Amino acid sequence: MKTYFGIDIGGTTIKFGLFHEDGELLEKWEIPTRKEHAGALIPEDIAFSLKEHAEKKKLTMAEISGIGVGVPGPVTEDGVVHQCPNLGWGTFSVAEKFQELTGVENIKIGNDANVATLGEMWRGGGKGSENIVMITLGTGVGGGVVIHGKILTGSRGAAGEIGHLCVNYHEPDTCGCGKHGCLEQYASATGIVKEAKRLLARDSRETKLRDMEKLSAKGIFDAAKLGDTVALELVEQLGFYLGMASSYLAQIVDPEVYVIGGGVSRAGKILLDAIEKHYDENVMDALKQKEFRLAELGNDAGIYGAVKMVLS
Amino acid sequence: MKTYFGIDIGGTTIKFGLFHEDGELLEKWEIPTRKEHAGALIPEDIAFSLKEHAEKKKLTMAEISGIGVGVPGPVTEDGVVHQCPNLGWGTFSVAEKFQELTGVENIKIGNDANVATLGEMWRGGGKGSENIVMITLGTGVGGGVVIHGKILTGSRGAAGEIGHLCVNYHEPDTCGCGKHGCLEQYASATGIVKEAKRLLARDSRETKLRDMEKLSAKGIFDAAKLGDTVALELVEQLGFYLGMASSYLAQIVDPEVYVIGGGVSRAGKILLDAIEKHYDENVMDALKQKEFRLAELGNDAGIYGAVKMVLS
Repeated sequence: MKTYFGIDIGGTTIKFGLFHEDGELLEKWEIPTRKEHAGALIPEDIAFSLKEHAEKKKLTMAEISGIGVGVPGPVTEDGVVHQCPNLGWGTFSVAEKFQELTGVENIKIGNDANVATLGEMWRGGGKGSENIVMITLGTGVGGGVVIHGKILTGSRGAAGEIGHLCVNYHEPDTCGCGKHGCLEQYASATGIVKEAKRLLARDSRETKLRDMEKLSAKGIFDAAKLGDTVALELVEQLGFYLGMASSYLAQIVDPEVYVIGGGVSRAGKILLDAIEKHYDENVMDALKQKEFRLAELGNDAGIYGAVKMVLS
Repeated sequence: MKTYFGIDIGGTTIKFGLFHEDGELLEKWEIPTRKEHAGALIPEDIAFSLKEHAEKKKLTMAEISGIGVGVPGPVTEDGVVHQCPNLGWGTFSVAEKFQELTGVENIKIGNDANVATLGEMWRGGGKGSENIVMITLGTGVGGGVVIHGKILTGSRGAAGEIGHLCVNYHEPDTCGCGKHGCLEQYASATGIVKEAKRLLARDSRETKLRDMEKLSAKGIFDAAKLGDTVALELVEQLGFYLGMASSYLAQIVDPEVYVIGGGVSRAGKILLDAIEKHYDENVMDALKQKEFRLAELGNDAGIYGAVKMVLS
């Protein structure tokens, strides 16, 4: 059976997976990301680690059928990364670099959020569909679009930047990206807390949220599940923003399944229900009643998706 | 040289084009759309007209290398049309029907707005790029998305429904689709006039628009070009809605070129400039400064795009 490597390069650690072509994960491991010298050490660290783990499995690099790599920055179809400040990288062909270092020809590079979406399509919450959108709610809001089983990359590698869809034209505060009213300002873990603080400041109703020592997205969902009116209102508002963004996605790419991932998605059904309600209110009839599901692969989505890129 | 037919089925007329594979349009003609009997006559009317025109050119149907067809309703990749009230059609495989009637194997069916987008990519305003979005501003607002030279169809054939992107959460009036705040409510020819009337009703400033016997989108643009403050404000507002919708498109699919078509686009540069300004304000840095161009093929975009579907 053919063997593949899937790699997910993050700002802190680099995750690796050795896979069989049927999707079986044989081994996974990680190494720290050494960002010094503008990230110049990263490709060689990766190549070294790959060879080491291949040898342990009594494999030569010539026996590796492909290597997929997810990178935290915009990547075009040709495997060129366009500025990746998280790693210190400028613009260069990461695909060529890895071909050179490993001798493996079949190498594909993708944006990490897009690659994770492909992973969820293949083995996670999107299983069974080839047209999915993933929205990842963590420290920031990321996402990706997969159409006919392939990542939608875009002309500059910036497709699927769902976190920076505008969902509120009247937002006075500036997003990290410089715009106003981005989804990330409301639906990231920090955004959720910020919106809660805003509401508490202008609202005098009694709520468990006031008694919390440290307000958190989890605390807000927990209070909502226990029926706290203010917390429920916050979840409703979050559902509006996410439902609205999902409606844009539907009107433009008409996916079959929405997969919601990231730490915030641990809230579960209450979150999916809130999104779905506002989604249905904001799409044409022909687009109503899509599936909203939770992500399943957690931090492994990236290595699965990386391998899926080189399989197909 | 290989010969192809491109067909654009509209609610009133059916347009035909006979093309060489290099894109040369050898002949074009049209027939009325006979909608009686739930549109059952349409396929046979088309097949008859094709044979007649092939014979005139001393071609047999066996010498036709492919037929592409644009249809005013949702079409999935398999050539199945899903309800097409404009023609009276229910759900059936239009591709199979035409294979049966013509004996030609290479048949592709697409949604008319999507097919027109492909036509503009091939021979019109999008020439030179394989990643374009078209927004058509006419009686309604339509559009399409082409990625890597292929129409983005979506899981239910409803991708590219740009006219029903929500661009105003506070709109009290209902769109034809049943939602509120759709782009079509502001950027269609009738929407532009409606917004003008709204503004004139609540505003007492002097403006040429009040003297017009019949307010029209063209009249508003003409007044704006002559410096009429109120008309300029209306163009600015239109630019906001179109720029905002274009920003959603960028954040999701990252196209290279936006092509603006339909009757309203005859306003020209003043319209493109207004869209571009608001577009740049509402996208991430990596997506700024895209090309906004005017459509070039007019009513022929559909027959060009139909042929392009069967060429590739």
